[in-house]
Amino acid sequence: MNDKAPIDFWFDFSSPYGYLLSERIDAVATRHGRAVRWHPILLGIIFQATGSRPPAGDDSAKARYIVRDFDRSARFMGIPYNPPSRFPLPTQAAARAYYWLHDRDSALARQFAHAVYRAYFIDDRDISAPDTVLDLAAALGTDRGQLAAALQMPELKARLKDECDAALAAGVFGSPHVLIDGEAFFGADRLPQIERWLETGGF
Amino acid sequence: MNDKAPIDFWFDFSSPYGYLLSERIDAVATRHGRAVRWHPILLGIIFQATGSRPPAGDDSAKARYIVRDFDRSARFMGIPYNPPSRFPLPTQAAARAYYWLHDRDSALARQFAHAVYRAYFIDDRDISAPDTVLDLAAALGTDRGQLAAALQMPELKARLKDECDAALAAGVFGSPHVLIDGEAFFGADRLPQIERWLETGGF
Repeated sequence: MNDKAPIDFWFDFSSPYGYLLSERIDAVATRHGRAVRWHPILLGIIFQATGSRPPAGDDSAKARYIVRDFDRSARFMGIPYNPPSRFPLPTQAAARAYYWLHDRDSALARQFAHAVYRAYFIDDRDISAPDTVLDLAAALGTDRGQLAAALQMPELKARLKDECDAALAAGVFGSPHVLIDGEAFFGADRLPQIERWLETGGF
Repeated sequence: MNDKAPIDFWFDFSSPYGYLLSERIDAVATRHGRAVRWHPILLGIIFQATGSRPPAGDDSAKARYIVRDFDRSARFMGIPYNPPSRFPLPTQAAARAYYWLHDRDSALARQFAHAVYRAYFIDDRDISAPDTVLDLAAALGTDRGQLAAALQMPELKARLKDECDAALAAGVFGSPHVLIDGEAFFGADRLPQIERWLETGGF
């Protein structure tokens, strides 16, 4: 794009705030002459390594708040969102498919990532099912059989594991996590700070 | 102020995000014809009851991020902030003094709350020390001896305990927490959503 360093964007396909940021991060980066490297990861691995806990899923006041905040934040940002009936979901198949696609066609992988997120957070589809993942990739023109075979390969499983390790090494502790020239931003709600950081080169 | 219900604002005097919101919440509410009820609470009691953990204080990647985010969020919001050398601090004395003052002069209590927050997050003073709390109140014209005596009274200790119980009953799980007509907003970063909610009556 130009000589400015790309932005890194880590996310889990089961993360509502990751979905919200995925709908905005490329446009914001492009306005400031930056490319974005997308890195789907598995929050299960991140939380296990960092001792963190998922922000929702139980029946606490905080968990109930966050479920409500997902929805309200989507409305605030003007992004379509339907609370999924199953949440959270395992996202190994989707993340592995992303990296397999990415090594072949990075633009297609980007389209696929949007398709996975929208299938989950708009259409309430079960993105944990390899069949759903294959359907979404096939709808973008990918050879279903080739991808199905790839999803079974130890190399692709190792690739996702390596990406999670690299995320941990970069200081990632949740989703979404953005890194701009060494400065970390956690959460879709940091988008205004990301924009100002890109505008000003730091504040 | 008028017939619109007041906003409730819960915070701990040791919470940096609580401090940031304290510098903005009254002006935002006033613009929309609302009063704000301030409620200092003790996060120790809230976390114990809800099973939550403080967001900073250890040496994890998340804790290091949050310390940096305190500072960056303050700059983003244009609010003076100096990372305190001792963090977090116990805030019983400050919170008890607030309620004692509030029952005598609510405007004075508001000034006192600002003074406590600024003493901690701008001037790096030890707001856990009853002497600091008494000095801050005395500087606003409060009788030091009377307040010193009040801080020892079981009634005032019970009052703060009751406020923490009321916060838990209202669904508070951290600081800052704002409630507008039944809608909860957690975190200083929800200020833009608070503003839109007040403007539109919900979105």
